[in-house]
Amino acid sequence: MVQLNENFIYGRRVLEEFLRAKRRKLNLVYLTEESAKIFKNKLTRENIPFKITTKKEMFELSRRKDHQGVIGIVEPFQYYELSYLFDISPALVVALDNIQDVRNFGSIIRTSYLTGASGIIIPERESAKVSPVVVHTSAGASEYIPIIMVNSVPHTLNILKQRGFKIYGATSSASSLPFDALEYPSRVVTVFGNEGVGLSNKVKRICDAFIHIPQKGLLDSFNVSVACGIIIYFISKKIFQKN
Amino acid sequence: MVQLNENFIYGRRVLEEFLRAKRRKLNLVYLTEESAKIFKNKLTRENIPFKITTKKEMFELSRRKDHQGVIGIVEPFQYYELSYLFDISPALVVALDNIQDVRNFGSIIRTSYLTGASGIIIPERESAKVSPVVVHTSAGASEYIPIIMVNSVPHTLNILKQRGFKIYGATSSASSLPFDALEYPSRVVTVFGNEGVGLSNKVKRICDAFIHIPQKGLLDSFNVSVACGIIIYFISKKIFQKN
Repeated sequence: MVQLNENFIYGRRVLEEFLRAKRRKLNLVYLTEESAKIFKNKLTRENIPFKITTKKEMFELSRRKDHQGVIGIVEPFQYYELSYLFDISPALVVALDNIQDVRNFGSIIRTSYLTGASGIIIPERESAKVSPVVVHTSAGASEYIPIIMVNSVPHTLNILKQRGFKIYGATSSASSLPFDALEYPSRVVTVFGNEGVGLSNKVKRICDAFIHIPQKGLLDSFNVSVACGIIIYFISKKIFQKN
Repeated sequence: MVQLNENFIYGRRVLEEFLRAKRRKLNLVYLTEESAKIFKNKLTRENIPFKITTKKEMFELSRRKDHQGVIGIVEPFQYYELSYLFDISPALVVALDNIQDVRNFGSIIRTSYLTGASGIIIPERESAKVSPVVVHTSAGASEYIPIIMVNSVPHTLNILKQRGFKIYGATSSASSLPFDALEYPSRVVTVFGNEGVGLSNKVKRICDAFIHIPQKGLLDSFNVSVACGIIIYFISKKIFQKN
C-alpha cells in the first residue's frame, strides 16, 4: 500500500461538498463498510468508482485517523488566475501574507466563502497551500471560493490597486483605525499577515489604510482566523448590502 | 524521565503570560540554552526555579515538538465558582455546550478575553477541559478570564436566568434571528453548541432567543470559534459601550 500524495480528501462532510460542488473530479473513493451505507448509492449514481476497504488500509493510505471512513483520490487543486478579480464589483478580496498554519488557512477559506468574499490570494512561497488538511478544515469551502496563488503578494496588491481596489492591512496596532468605524468603498482587499510577525514591510508600503479590532485585555491580538472572521463579516455586509 | 501529567505549559508566549498574570505558581521551568537567554534573568528575579536541558528531554517530558524550548511545571488550573457571575453588570457570559475540539476551546478563551467577556462556562463531562494544549491555543488568555466548570449547563443557565441574565443560543438556522439586528440587555449569556450536533435540546428549551450569523453559500455554518468571535465581538460592543 503506497501512501497517497497531496491529491486526496478525507472526511464525510468534505466528500459531500465535493459531490455537490462538482469542481474537481473524484477518481476513486475508499469507503469502510459503514460509510458505504451513506455514500454507495450516490457514488453509483454519479459513476464515481469506489472501493470498500478497512480502517487500517485507510490509515496506511492517508496517515490519518480522522478520515471517518472516507478517503477520495481527486484531481489536483486548480488555482484561479488573478485576472478573475479585475472586473468584479462590488468585490471583497482576502489576501494572506504568509499564513503558516494549515488550520488557520482552512478556517479563513471557510469564513471567506460564507461571508461572500470574492476570492482569496496566497503567495506561492512561505505559505500554507491547499492541502488535504486545508480542504478538510475549510469544510469543503475550498471547492467553491476562488483561490489565487501568486508569485508576489506586494506586486499583486499593486496590480489590484491600479485596477481600483483599496488595500486595507489588518494589524494589531491600536494606532491604526478601528475596522468598524470606517466606510468602505465597493472594491476592497483586506490583507492579513503572518501569525508571528504580522504584515511584511513590503505589503505595508502598499496599504491605503491600516485597521485593527479594538480589544480589551493584555494579550497581543486575536487569532488570525478569528480576526479575519470579525473583520470580513463586517466589511462584506457593508460592501454587498450597499452596492 | 517521566512524562508530565496535565499540569504543565509550553511555548514562549504562554510563559510570558504566566509571568505577567501571576495567577498560577510556576514550580519549575525547563529551558534550552537558547530560550534561557530570553527568560533566565526574569525567572531569577522572580525566584522561579529553572533547569537548562535538551530538546530531547523536553520532548520526553511533554511528547510535544512545538514547545519552543519552554516547558513549565505549574499549579493545577483553578476554575471559578458560578457565584462569581451573579452580581456582575453589565455582563457577557460565553457558555459552551460540549465543545470537543481543544483548539476551538482555546481559541474561544482567547477571543472571549479580548472582547472583554465576563467569563466562560463549560460542562464537567463531554467537553474539552483546560489542558496544556488549550492554554497554549488560548495564547495564555486562560490565565486571565474566569472559566467556570459546571455539572450541568442547562441547570446553570436556569440559575443565571433567575438572576436576570437573558440566554441567547447560537444556531446555524436561518429561521432564528440575525445576531446583528437585535438590541441586547445588559446581562447576556450566549451559548455555543457542539461542533457536530449544535445545541442540545435541554439547552434549547432554556434559551430566550436563538441567533445566527447571516451567511452566503452552501456550507453548513461557520467554524464555532470564528462564529463565537463574530457574535461576541458585536454583543460585547453593544453591552459594554451602552452600559
